[in-house]
Amino acid sequence: MEEITNKVIEMKIGRAFLFRCPENSELPKFVEEFAQEKEIETGIVNAIGTLKEAKLGYFNTDAGRYEEIKVEGTKELLSAIGNISLKDSRPFAHIHAILGDETGETVGGHLIWGKVLVGEIFILELMGERLERKKEGSLYLWPPYPPIH
Amino acid sequence: MEEITNKVIEMKIGRAFLFRCPENSELPKFVEEFAQEKEIETGIVNAIGTLKEAKLGYFNTDAGRYEEIKVEGTKELLSAIGNISLKDSRPFAHIHAILGDETGETVGGHLIWGKVLVGEIFILELMGERLERKKEGSLYLWPPYPPIH
Amino acid sequence: MEEITNKVIEMKIGRAFLFRCPENSELPKFVEEFAQEKEIETGIVNAIGTLKEAKLGYFNTDAGRYEEIKVEGTKELLSAIGNISLKDSRPFAHIHAILGDETGETVGGHLIWGKVLVGEIFILELMGERLERKKEGSLYLWPPYPPIH
Repeated sequence: MEEITNKVIEMKIGRAFLFRCPENSELPKFVEEFAQEKEIETGIVNAIGTLKEAKLGYFNTDAGRYEEIKVEGTKELLSAIGNISLKDSRPFAHIHAILGDETGETVGGHLIWGKVLVGEIFILELMGERLERKKEGSLYLWPPYPPIH
Repeated sequence: MEEITNKVIEMKIGRAFLFRCPENSELPKFVEEFAQEKEIETGIVNAIGTLKEAKLGYFNTDAGRYEEIKVEGTKELLSAIGNISLKDSRPFAHIHAILGDETGETVGGHLIWGKVLVGEIFILELMGERLERKKEGSLYLWPPYPPIH
Repeated sequence: MEEITNKVIEMKIGRAFLFRCPENSELPKFVEEFAQEKEIETGIVNAIGTLKEAKLGYFNTDAGRYEEIKVEGTKELLSAIGNISLKDSRPFAHIHAILGDETGETVGGHLIWGKVLVGEIFILELMGERLERKKEGSLYLWPPYPPIH
């Protein structure tokens, strides 16, 4: 069991980035490499655009692992929201995505992998205490706030 | 009929918070209690994670009330976005959520209640004019901008 | 083919706006008119609320145009996220939306048009380099970052 420590969770706003990532970029990898390059340790991410294909995940709590949902063909990236924090001392992006097809039907999950046709990405850097993911059961999580006594 | 007053709606960015709420927290209640504790009167919220169960709402305009949509079993919290403002002088969180199952199928609505397995929450405080919800028909709303003459 | 230039994409946070747009406002037009009035050239947008009807789009890459998805009847606006940038020197809002019905079923796409019942809109202005959409194939896009050599 991880020792749960109280985290100072109040943060200040740092830099903001709004950009288009190149066609054939891979998400969330591109966001992580961008964060690495720009030295962003903590932040929030959101994106819209179009993906050529994607792999989504559903966390199976019984099995303790992600079930993979394969999404084929070009889909609108209706929503991708999440955050950047540290895992093994490197920027790690945790993003959930919802995709839409030509009828408007949606499919969603944890974004394991997506290949970009068009990706408009917003990243807002947060400055303050280091936020690090540690293994807790089958997941990599931050210590919860408020701390459990 | 409420008197519609012009609101100065330009705001400044206050504090930012990115944290994990504890397992079995209830949303949106946890966000409201957090806002109360941190004295956040206005802000925006977004979250991703996993919910154990949830109750969503669809506002039936004819009946003037929310229809409830019960969601059973663990679902990915694909998107929860919304805001914090004042209602009866206390922080009130208005959040819409979209959940996903193991096939990627989604269900969404006004987030009435959700029980957290994992909840990664971002809150951005906004500073400025007080934004208060007042009863207008069957809903609690802010005065619209621009004001109706 | 557009010449791809390196863009300085780091931006600073400007003003923030959280407000309710009036009933029967049209999205994304209202956001664009608001941006024009407030002289917002770049920013991010998100919104929740309820729409009376909507027209969504799916970009058909083969045909090089948007297929339209007509959504009739009042739906919860579960998520509307996107950005504001310049197109033909005027503020242009690019927004993707997901709507939900009384059973929680969702439909989503590029938000071509929506008629508002209730719209709670957040806009965060970004200050820095001008971000302009230029025609690239069948779409209006920003130059990608990092630049292609």
